[in-house]
This record gives sequence, structure tokens and C-alpha cells, in this order.
Amino acid sequence: MKTDKILLDHGSGGKISHRLTADIMLPIFNNSILSQLDDGAIFDLEGKRFAFSTDTYVVDPIFFPGGNIGDLAINGTVNDIAMCGAVPLYLSAGLIIEEGFPISDLKIIIKDMGVAADIAGVKVVTGDTKVVPKGAADKIFINTSGIGLIPEHVNIASHNARVGDKIILSGSIADHGVTVLTQREGMTFSSTIISDTASLNHMVNSMLSVSSNVHVLRDPTRGGVGTALNEIAMSSEVGIRIYEEKLPVRDEVAGICELLGFDPLYIANEGKLIAFVGQDDAKDVLSAMKEDKHGKDASIIGEVVSDLPGKVFMQTRIGGSRIVDMLTGEQLPRIC
Amino acid sequence: MKTDKILLDHGSGGKISHRLTADIMLPIFNNSILSQLDDGAIFDLEGKRFAFSTDTYVVDPIFFPGGNIGDLAINGTVNDIAMCGAVPLYLSAGLIIEEGFPISDLKIIIKDMGVAADIAGVKVVTGDTKVVPKGAADKIFINTSGIGLIPEHVNIASHNARVGDKIILSGSIADHGVTVLTQREGMTFSSTIISDTASLNHMVNSMLSVSSNVHVLRDPTRGGVGTALNEIAMSSEVGIRIYEEKLPVRDEVAGICELLGFDPLYIANEGKLIAFVGQDDAKDVLSAMKEDKHGKDASIIGEVVSDLPGKVFMQTRIGGSRIVDMLTGEQLPRIC
Repeated sequence: MKTDKILLDHGSGGKISHRLTADIMLPIFNNSILSQLDDGAIFDLEGKRFAFSTDTYVVDPIFFPGGNIGDLAINGTVNDIAMCGAVPLYLSAGLIIEEGFPISDLKIIIKDMGVAADIAGVKVVTGDTKVVPKGAADKIFINTSGIGLIPEHVNIASHNARVGDKIILSGSIADHGVTVLTQREGMTFSSTIISDTASLNHMVNSMLSVSSNVHVLRDPTRGGVGTALNEIAMSSEVGIRIYEEKLPVRDEVAGICELLGFDPLYIANEGKLIAFVGQDDAKDVLSAMKEDKHGKDASIIGEVVSDLPGKVFMQTRIGGSRIVDMLTGEQLPRIC
Repeated sequence: MKTDKILLDHGSGGKISHRLTADIMLPIFNNSILSQLDDGAIFDLEGKRFAFSTDTYVVDPIFFPGGNIGDLAINGTVNDIAMCGAVPLYLSAGLIIEEGFPISDLKIIIKDMGVAADIAGVKVVTGDTKVVPKGAADKIFINTSGIGLIPEHVNIASHNARVGDKIILSGSIADHGVTVLTQREGMTFSSTIISDTASLNHMVNSMLSVSSNVHVLRDPTRGGVGTALNEIAMSSEVGIRIYEEKLPVRDEVAGICELLGFDPLYIANEGKLIAFVGQDDAKDVLSAMKEDKHGKDASIIGEVVSDLPGKVFMQTRIGGSRIVDMLTGEQLPRIC
């Protein structure tokens, strides 16, 4: 699709987003750190390795079952840093608020940012607040950026997947995206569905303490598990095989996806991770995950293979096999 | 003024902004690094000192004489880090784009971000792009966050001003704010007025290389020189005396301020700094600044005194003296 205007698709996290980054950003901000395109930037400084990540949250509605834009903004950036194998330490918070926004709502959002930061063990050390006239922004947008320190033995990157690696998913998929969608559309039948927003850094610590063979970590947010796996397959130039029957989708979530014609593989998660682990260590890492409340439903969903490098394919319930492509359009705008 | 809604004033950088931060943010994000409230956070990590800063740019219009939202976003965060005495190294860029925004405009903005980063000698190493539906944001907002390393001998903070310090201003004031204002209001008589947006980190390097008695650095952006000096007077618990006749204001800028009833002391600058320097070193620091193109019009505008701690007062042209208070309302929304 050719266009001279920015489309919602450009923010989807899928194919068209990637093209925008590749065509416009990378040639200008030309450096080897950015071009890795991991969840965060990894760089050496004074003999130590750091992870640095940024994310802007524009979720609509700003309050949803299980969380709000505030804890989402803390958890999201904590997770991006943790997915680099880093221990997240310091966060910034940049707010854009629409004139007329209720101060009582702002207080709830800030309070929940504080609670989320405490749970993750990070400090919000610098911030900025801009107010724009009514109509120039929708309620509130929050950017968080963060810094973490990578322990010496850790070496995690999306290009590190190796043939034979087991792929572990920490729990059920599509909860966050479906929650936000149903809230936005005013679907009240879905009272038991809540966002999975959570910080995963403590679980990552446990995983890294039992294995030095965790090769890739990724939190499948915008674009979902399908897009995340495609990015890893391409970065690592390997094939990825997953099993449909092993993908945990909660019944209510599956029902709504079916009703609305969405594929849960492409729906955002905000408290889940995918780990690629050397096969000998997979059992230990899985056990470590299961001991954490955010990983109690973790399971092995597939493995890295030498077939079809750069591609993801899924063995279906009925025994067939199909390619899982990257998300091509915008399924759900303003999901995070 | 009591209100239960966010007002434009809350983003002014003045008194009401400070109250919002003090009442809502600080009690929640309760840590000694944030509570310094400098342009950036300063923290120790693995035996080194780092500066970390964030700023969101919502300037309207996005293109203006002398720059655009892109180079403004790079220069602003580079300067915030430099004002901590740090060498800025790595930046993040978080974009919120309105659906329908012209890709050709985005290309210009990204290109100018790249040019500004090259001039400053920093790398944009991580980013995020969100697209929101038409009407949910006004064109484009950009958050930049950044990290810098503080050299060992450097110790700069807004609470470090000492009685006797000379106050040096790097050049004319109010250029950026008046440029944006006249553009926004469609005032075409002001063809010679351009924004001063520029990165000041190289000039700061030169200043710190000739003196170890630079005590405070501040770039007087939102709220202008008047607000910045008040913040320093309060943080350092000292009195600040400045001389009206020493404050450089370009004739066209002064004319527009007079016409519209604005005080240039409270108008935003985006390529100027104020330095508080031990009196014995003031001449050397001033010389170093004058050798830099962004400091060629630098001059000493006042000094730190023991009278009236926490207050700023100005000796006027006609020989009187008046208190320069902190900005109380929002003079100019969306100025940066």
C-alpha cells in the first residue's frame, strides 16, 4: 500500500510499522545500537553494559479492568528493559495532559505508577509534564523511558535464537488486548476478562539465576505473539515451529476473538514473555517460571528448527501446518 | 486558585506547575534523586555518576523559523543533560503521530533530529512510534530522554549557588518563545525573528575545562530566565541580584513583547544557558563562552548575594529595584 500520509497501521507494531522504521528512522539515526531493533538499546559504558528503552502509552480507555495507563506505562518499560536481560533501575515519566483533565484521575494514575514502580523495585527519578489545550490530545499520554544494568554473564538478544532452543511462553495470550477492546466498545458481557499488565523483571531474574542459556526474551505486546516470533525468526535467521494446542488462550478471550474475528496470536499482551532457552536448560527455566505468580501457567509452545529460516509455522490442532505471518495491518489502535 | 481540573497553567513551568509536582508527583515517586528537581536526575551507578533526563515536545506550530519540533526535541534533552554537567551520550525518541500526518513532514522532522544529534555528538539508540486516530492528538508530539556521564571533578546542581557567584547569561533572551508565538498568531511583520534552538553541550565542555568553580547551570526554557533564577534562588537559599540594563533582548523581540504585553524575562529560550560561577573564575568562563558561537554575546548579568534569600531582585534601568517573581500563570502554551 502506497500512501503519503501516516496511517493507524504505521503504529501497529506489525509490517508497516517496521517499514516506517526501516525506511525513515534507521537511515538517519544510523548506528549499530539502534539497528539491533530489540526491545531496548544495549550499550557499553565504562566497562559495564546498560539497557535503555522508551515507550509511549496512548491506551484508550485510560482505565480498564486490571490496570490503567499509569501502571501500564511503568510495567511496559520495566519489561522492555528486563527483556534485554537487564535489571531495571531508573525510570523517567513524561506526561502530556489535555486541558480540563480531572486532577482526581491524575492522582489515581500517579498513585498506580508509584505502586507499579515499588513492585518492580525501580525508581522514577525524572519527569516532565506538558499540558495542551482541550482537543489537542485525548485525555493523557505517558512516555516512560528507563535504564537497567546487564549482569556480566547475561547475553540476550533477538538474534541469539539457536536451532534446538525450546520456546517457553509464560501464560495465556491476548488478555490485555481483548480487555481494552471490550472496554472501548462497551461490551459488558466480558466481566471476567482483565488485563495481564504486570512487571516481569523478578521472574526474569529467577530465570537467569538457573540458566546461562536463555538466548532470547521478548514481551509480546503490540502485534502479539505472532509478530514477536516473526521478529525473532528474522533476526536469528532460524525457523520457528509452534503448536496450536499448546498456546494457552482463556475461554472468554477465545470466545470474544472468535466473535469479532480477531486472531489471539496478534493481540497485545502486557504481562507475558516468550523465552528461547537452550534445550538442556528448558526444564529448569520452566520450573523457575512456574514458581513466579506471573509464570505459573508457563509452558513450552514450540522450538527452533533449521527449516524455513526467517519463518514461523504452526502445527494446527487438526494436524496441518500453516505459516504464521507478521501482522500486516492495525488490528487494534491505542491498545497500549 | 483552586480547581479540580488540569489547566494550561499546570504546564507552564511556573508556580502552578511546581505545585502540581510537589503535591501529586513527589509524595508518590518518593526518592532523593527526583526531589532534587534539577533539569535531569543525577545518580551513582557502579562508581560512576550519570545524568538522565526526559522532555516531551508539543510545540505549535511544529515548523518555525530556526527549527522544528525535531531538532528542538534533540537539543532540549541534550541541554538538560549538559546542564547537569554531564556529557550527553545516548537519546531515545518516542513519537506520537496523528493519523493522516504527512509522511513528507515526518521525513523532514526525522532528518533534522539526525542533524541535531550529529551536531551534539549524541546517538539516538532506541525509539517508539505510536499512531493515534485523527483528532486524538494534534499532528505530532515527541518525547526524548537521554543519558550522560558526569566527569569526576564536576559537581553542578541548582542548590550549589554561593554568595559572591557571578551569573553569566549566554546571549539574548526570549527569541524562541517570541518566534513560536508570532508564527502561531500569523504575525508576518517579524521576519527577522528566529528561534535560538541549539545544543549547548560543547560550550559547557569548554566552560568546565577552564574552571572547576561552575556551581550551577540552567537552560531557561519554559518560564524563561525569571523562573529559572527563582528556582535557583530557592534551591540554594540565596538572594539573586540582576541588572535590567545587562539583560540582552534583541530589538525586534523587545518590540513584540511590548506590543503584546509579555515580559521577556518569562519567555522561553531553547539555546541559552545561565551559569553561576565562583567570582575568581567568572572571567575565564566568560571568555570560554565567547569563543563558542552560542556564547558570543555572553555577559555577566548579576551576582549572588546574602540579602533576601530565596528571592530574585532586579536593579532597573531607572535605578529602582523590584522583585522578579516566579511566573504564576501560563503565558504561552505549547511553546516547546
